[in-house]
Amino acid sequence: MFRTHTCGELRLSDAGKEVTLAGWVQRIRDKGSLVWIDLRDRYGITQLFLQEGTGDPKLMEQARSFGREFVIQVKGTVIERESKNPNMPTGEIELRVSHFTLLNVSKTPPFTIEDMSDGGDDLRMKYRYLDLRRNPVRSNIELRHRMAMLVRNYMSDHDFLEIETPMLIKSTPEGARDFVVPSRMNPGEFYALPQSPQQYKQLLMVAGMDRYFQIVRCFRDEDLRADRQPEFTQIDCEMSFVEQDDVLDMFEGLTKHLFKEVKGLSFDNFPRMTWHDAMKYYGSDKPDIRFGMKFVELNEVAQGKGFGLFDNAELVVGICAEGCSEYTRKQLDALTEFVKRPQVGAGGMVYIKYNSDGTFKSSVDKFFSPDDLKRMAEKFNAKPGDLMLILCGEAMKTRKQLNELRLEMGNQLGLRKPDEYAPLWVIDFPLLEWDEETQRFYAMHHPFTAPNPEDEALIDDPSKWGDIRANAYDIVMNGVEVGGGSIRIHNRDLQNKMFHALGFTDEKAQEQFGFLMGAFEYGAPPHAGLAFGFDRLCSLFGGCETIRDFIAFPKNNSGRDVMSGSPSPIAQEQLDELQITLNVKS
Amino acid sequence: MFRTHTCGELRLSDAGKEVTLAGWVQRIRDKGSLVWIDLRDRYGITQLFLQEGTGDPKLMEQARSFGREFVIQVKGTVIERESKNPNMPTGEIELRVSHFTLLNVSKTPPFTIEDMSDGGDDLRMKYRYLDLRRNPVRSNIELRHRMAMLVRNYMSDHDFLEIETPMLIKSTPEGARDFVVPSRMNPGEFYALPQSPQQYKQLLMVAGMDRYFQIVRCFRDEDLRADRQPEFTQIDCEMSFVEQDDVLDMFEGLTKHLFKEVKGLSFDNFPRMTWHDAMKYYGSDKPDIRFGMKFVELNEVAQGKGFGLFDNAELVVGICAEGCSEYTRKQLDALTEFVKRPQVGAGGMVYIKYNSDGTFKSSVDKFFSPDDLKRMAEKFNAKPGDLMLILCGEAMKTRKQLNELRLEMGNQLGLRKPDEYAPLWVIDFPLLEWDEETQRFYAMHHPFTAPNPEDEALIDDPSKWGDIRANAYDIVMNGVEVGGGSIRIHNRDLQNKMFHALGFTDEKAQEQFGFLMGAFEYGAPPHAGLAFGFDRLCSLFGGCETIRDFIAFPKNNSGRDVMSGSPSPIAQEQLDELQITLNVKS
Repeated sequence: MFRTHTCGELRLSDAGKEVTLAGWVQRIRDKGSLVWIDLRDRYGITQLFLQEGTGDPKLMEQARSFGREFVIQVKGTVIERESKNPNMPTGEIELRVSHFTLLNVSKTPPFTIEDMSDGGDDLRMKYRYLDLRRNPVRSNIELRHRMAMLVRNYMSDHDFLEIETPMLIKSTPEGARDFVVPSRMNPGEFYALPQSPQQYKQLLMVAGMDRYFQIVRCFRDEDLRADRQPEFTQIDCEMSFVEQDDVLDMFEGLTKHLFKEVKGLSFDNFPRMTWHDAMKYYGSDKPDIRFGMKFVELNEVAQGKGFGLFDNAELVVGICAEGCSEYTRKQLDALTEFVKRPQVGAGGMVYIKYNSDGTFKSSVDKFFSPDDLKRMAEKFNAKPGDLMLILCGEAMKTRKQLNELRLEMGNQLGLRKPDEYAPLWVIDFPLLEWDEETQRFYAMHHPFTAPNPEDEALIDDPSKWGDIRANAYDIVMNGVEVGGGSIRIHNRDLQNKMFHALGFTDEKAQEQFGFLMGAFEYGAPPHAGLAFGFDRLCSLFGGCETIRDFIAFPKNNSGRDVMSGSPSPIAQEQLDELQITLNVKS
Repeated sequence: MFRTHTCGELRLSDAGKEVTLAGWVQRIRDKGSLVWIDLRDRYGITQLFLQEGTGDPKLMEQARSFGREFVIQVKGTVIERESKNPNMPTGEIELRVSHFTLLNVSKTPPFTIEDMSDGGDDLRMKYRYLDLRRNPVRSNIELRHRMAMLVRNYMSDHDFLEIETPMLIKSTPEGARDFVVPSRMNPGEFYALPQSPQQYKQLLMVAGMDRYFQIVRCFRDEDLRADRQPEFTQIDCEMSFVEQDDVLDMFEGLTKHLFKEVKGLSFDNFPRMTWHDAMKYYGSDKPDIRFGMKFVELNEVAQGKGFGLFDNAELVVGICAEGCSEYTRKQLDALTEFVKRPQVGAGGMVYIKYNSDGTFKSSVDKFFSPDDLKRMAEKFNAKPGDLMLILCGEAMKTRKQLNELRLEMGNQLGLRKPDEYAPLWVIDFPLLEWDEETQRFYAMHHPFTAPNPEDEALIDDPSKWGDIRANAYDIVMNGVEVGGGSIRIHNRDLQNKMFHALGFTDEKAQEQFGFLMGAFEYGAPPHAGLAFGFDRLCSLFGGCETIRDFIAFPKNNSGRDVMSGSPSPIAQEQLDELQITLNVKS
């Protein structure tokens, strides 16, 4: 071993000990006759101390030859510091150096290895191995490890078995795009990389495994939006002989356990909200309920007053921003600009100020009397000093627009605190979604999702297909979907009806899901599952926005690893062996 | 929840309780007025009991309608059994049924779901989800889960971080064949699936992560020998600032922990054997030391007696099989046939029987006097009643042949007991291996393996390259290599010399290992690593021969999953998007 201690563990109680440390030179301070070196490893920083005239005179010379990020081994005596640093765990001691061994040199790093680095995103990605040396990045990776351990032990303690499912599986053209892998042993044939182990975990239930989980890599060949990765990690789970409450209780328990262990936070039972209510009151299937500003529908009081925009709208709906009646013209214009951006897409915004003196001022004073405005204010439960913001139009579109405005107001008012957590279950999603373009229904979740038992009979009536609620659930946190799942269909009859509603012919269903459907004929138990996005969950617990910060070696938005230069061309010999030819349009 | 208890948990102390169970119908015994059903789930079997004339008369009818593997829910009262079964944990009770719910029907399974199934290998692979219902297969999967949990907790307790490395990486033409993945977003370019996270784990050491591990899927596109899988799982580890003893101690600790927890076995320190001794005394770099029969070299006593085969041989070497002097002519002929098989390749075998009366009988009596034979027997430390078996020829070839004979004798004599474990470290492997065909040296381990410090200077003398010992180690158990690793080169100069010895031009080294070599310029610490074959480790702990039994969904020898029918052709549209064309020679 190159060390007796790590750079994070020596304390005042170790004073007088002869120790050996190894690590990286973080910083050298040279005051002429005195030199200090900060020596860093994963566990912390220990200050090394050299004084001219004491000890081997060569030591000082050696110390001055070290550059940033040199790797050194150092022997010395632990001594009490003259000026202590209460901000670091080793801040009461330093090491009086008696011997140096240079283990490796380093070129000058392209950016500083400090909490606030001077390196831009691209540079830090190219030298990811140096970026990972920085505390904030390292601590993200440590958090991820800790969370994975907590999840695994919790699941195992609850009788879940972690079972590894294959990575080289069968490609299914439906759904998102697969990454495929040509098979050399079976020329002309391909494996696919799993988008999720969905079918395998259901097979494991058929196999009687009862409770399965896996922290597993998944792959999706999509055009990458910001903060999407072609490979990502799921906490994937499935359980048999359960109903919705059992699944929600189980994974609520897991989530609470993580909050308790990682953040020291305790929670009451997570609220459960229907998808219908989530859309009605928040305009989103993943509402951020860290703050209020629930939607208030105003058709009743806002229509019939001669304001054409409201009168002709399917829905007039607004939010009330507490204490914002003093918003300036400029602020209100900026909000109007915000909702009119193409990403939001509203035509405009109406505001009503409920001034502190009890009077009203609105952008529609021409159409609404103070009494009209008062009635609206009552709908909002508004008080003097509040600001009401109103949108109108087609119901679903307007809700989604108002959701954006609500989140923007939450941001502006500092109501979306990264260290506050508001978990929520969203349940009763629609089972089937109508697609105008292809004129057919699609499974909102996937084709094995069971309907809410109360709605099961509706599947026999095509005119009701849009009304069927799924026995599906999402776990949402701070406006982010962190997981979701459903009760699965285990009954062959119901599954056939579902395929029928999705417009699958028997042949197509057989081709795509044949082996799973075949398995279901041999005694499939009632079962259900859920999957968490692990990268996302880590980023939420880490209080960060981007999942990339929680992945050791992420790819950029073109799916490229700029550090290793992958993907890359391969040798002609490799192509020949696979019996494929490139056909790239230049 | 569909149940109040599992089928494995009810005991006599539960008698009188009203409970609900759910599971699969394992067996129905119909004795006319009495019917018993064995209900099975992952946790065990509970006997259900029905008696004509008691309870709802429809129950009996329902029970008789159930077939094997039907999924049912049953309510009833726990009662004490008349005839108890001490062989099952629930054997003291049965459930007097008050209500049945049929949850799902089942077609008759293609083979029996029993410990000893009547299904052949192929059938059981096709219906793997049914095979997994059988106790022996299920318990293998449970063992694997348990071992993974033990490994993770042990490693985490020793400050190792589990860090996920990418699955879509850069292809390197050297070494085994990569599986490749065409990149749609970067047409004409490919990712590779990792053969191991070797380069990433070394980068993590450069990144200062200090201690890394990962239970990780790896991929190798090789022509599959029996019991090889195209995807397999490794316990992959790397640590910084360590020397060989530190690594061996760490992973010996892990292995002992597994033995203790899983098998209740304690071990002294594992023996350490040099590669040279392993070859000299066992003819194998993975000797099975559960039994003796160490090789004895006989040149000194066997040559110069006029027996040409011996006299002209580079090596005369044998083993002594205790108590086997009574082997018949037929048995000895069979052994001769065994060594002459092309897989072994010996020209013949010489035997010397040391009869219980103290006389000798050998196949070379013509050339050797009783005194000569006695001198040989002394070399073997043989006693009356023993049998000596001798091969001769070119040294390395003969040793490998004798290794096969030794293992065969171990099998014949029942010395290779699956429930006995003999772990062993093999150290000091050669660093470089000469390849006659390509007339160059290859890295026996990989190009980053450091030489044994005592041999480091030899790298400057090409004539000594074959003599350099690597700072590399394998962990061997019962004649199987379960893991291996090495101290890595962290010094750029030494690495360049190594590349030179391997015949890499600077350009080629740069092209293949450029980003890792680049990273090493920024302060790479001394580091070392090891990887266990997890599938193999599980199979050893499970006392089984084949790793396939410890993989939930394995592939066959053509890399095919016969259950799902993967690999398979993909849609033309998928090929078009990837801008590749099939070019299959029919």
